[in-house]
Amino acid sequence: MSPRMISSDDRGLHYGDGLFETVTCVHGQPRWLARHLARLRLGCERLGIAMPDQALLQAKIAALADGQARCLVKLIVTRGVATARGYRPSGAEVPTLVVQLYPWPAPAAGRFTVDVSPVRLGENPLLAGLKHLNRLEQVLAQQQAGIAGVSETLMRASSGGVICGSMSNLFLCEATALITPGVEQCGVAGVMRSLVMDAARAVALPLHVAAVSPERLHAAPAAFVTNVRLGLQSVGTLERRELAVDPRVLKLQDWIHAHTA
Amino acid sequence: MSPRMISSDDRGLHYGDGLFETVTCVHGQPRWLARHLARLRLGCERLGIAMPDQALLQAKIAALADGQARCLVKLIVTRGVATARGYRPSGAEVPTLVVQLYPWPAPAAGRFTVDVSPVRLGENPLLAGLKHLNRLEQVLAQQQAGIAGVSETLMRASSGGVICGSMSNLFLCEATALITPGVEQCGVAGVMRSLVMDAARAVALPLHVAAVSPERLHAAPAAFVTNVRLGLQSVGTLERRELAVDPRVLKLQDWIHAHTA
Repeated sequence: MSPRMISSDDRGLHYGDGLFETVTCVHGQPRWLARHLARLRLGCERLGIAMPDQALLQAKIAALADGQARCLVKLIVTRGVATARGYRPSGAEVPTLVVQLYPWPAPAAGRFTVDVSPVRLGENPLLAGLKHLNRLEQVLAQQQAGIAGVSETLMRASSGGVICGSMSNLFLCEATALITPGVEQCGVAGVMRSLVMDAARAVALPLHVAAVSPERLHAAPAAFVTNVRLGLQSVGTLERRELAVDPRVLKLQDWIHAHTA
Repeated sequence: MSPRMISSDDRGLHYGDGLFETVTCVHGQPRWLARHLARLRLGCERLGIAMPDQALLQAKIAALADGQARCLVKLIVTRGVATARGYRPSGAEVPTLVVQLYPWPAPAAGRFTVDVSPVRLGENPLLAGLKHLNRLEQVLAQQQAGIAGVSETLMRASSGGVICGSMSNLFLCEATALITPGVEQCGVAGVMRSLVMDAARAVALPLHVAAVSPERLHAAPAAFVTNVRLGLQSVGTLERRELAVDPRVLKLQDWIHAHTA
């Protein structure tokens, strides 16, 4: 877990003023690093944090992943130690970089079960899409998911639409197209989500970004959730309704596998 | 500033999974501590974090404030160092307590100027009212306020209503009553806000919690913002419109002064 210490004056602690990425590494090599770093760069731009040097990030990831068959490396970039009290950044902060190694989690046994969380996502287009450090909504949703005993929990926006899982993006397998909700008001623009979108285009599977009401979700014959660790994970059970496995999932997986270094 | 170090595995850093209070101290004595601790306790209950021992908190505040004419003491309580990867708390975490001393800020010179921020507040009733560590919206709003050169910036909810300042609560001085927005969907239930509400009741000034549209805000003859450091701060200028100072402000200040140990 490579714990180290950070200053208790760090704005990452005080305000969640920063960003993170969880990079999957196989045989010591980070996967889809360019996409992770592109999202991190976008986040730094939106928050006005200096993007850490890319070569430095790559070197730190490589050093931790070296010799590991499979592992996760988490990057945290905060605005840095506060140089003055209060929310307003002074502009003189030096970003803090934390890079941590985690073992690859053991795969969960049994069906992949999903429910819809009672915890909603607040909407803010300035923060939507980013993997920032303000994650209390996900913490609360996962607390509830733990009580409910489900593998993942889907989250609705405060205005009603189903957006994503607490730690994944969502795709519905409708008869004529794959559907994934937009992440312009809340939710994270997942790296695996972007790969699925590229794969669908490449293999000519219709895929649309569209609003997903709870009714639309519950009418879907099949669905899958995505993140870089799970890949494409078919939903086995959605609130006690058993879902089919859609053949399009395998096609997308094959393309992504073939196009991953 | 009494910096100390915390583990980079702390969930306060990773997720903003925690709460804070900024306590004003005068002649070594914390003011309104019972109200601060009541809000902290409510936050701990909502997030499922063990409330730190009250006597311990009091002793730590007293130790820092000792000998200071005026100072701020900030308490941060996080869920603690992660015992497992991911959003879901294991329940085995031991809360982290950070207690820091800050000098009393120099009062700003000139008129107290206020604008309406382009940054909105996402809405989540499970987090609303709490002083939790997910504060990116306030950071973004204060960045904008810095560019605009205003003393404070008012924030609207994503659904439209004006809720509060980035670091204060808002009261409009309408002809027949004082009005303050509700904080059930977003915003913080401020300690000074609760004191103003008690004071208004005690001196029989009509005060209502009610929705404040931008139109209602801009029609108000006078307004003030509150926090424990500023007390009741009359708004001098609201987006270039000069506001009056309402005589009710002095009445409320007098009551609060008389009822503060």
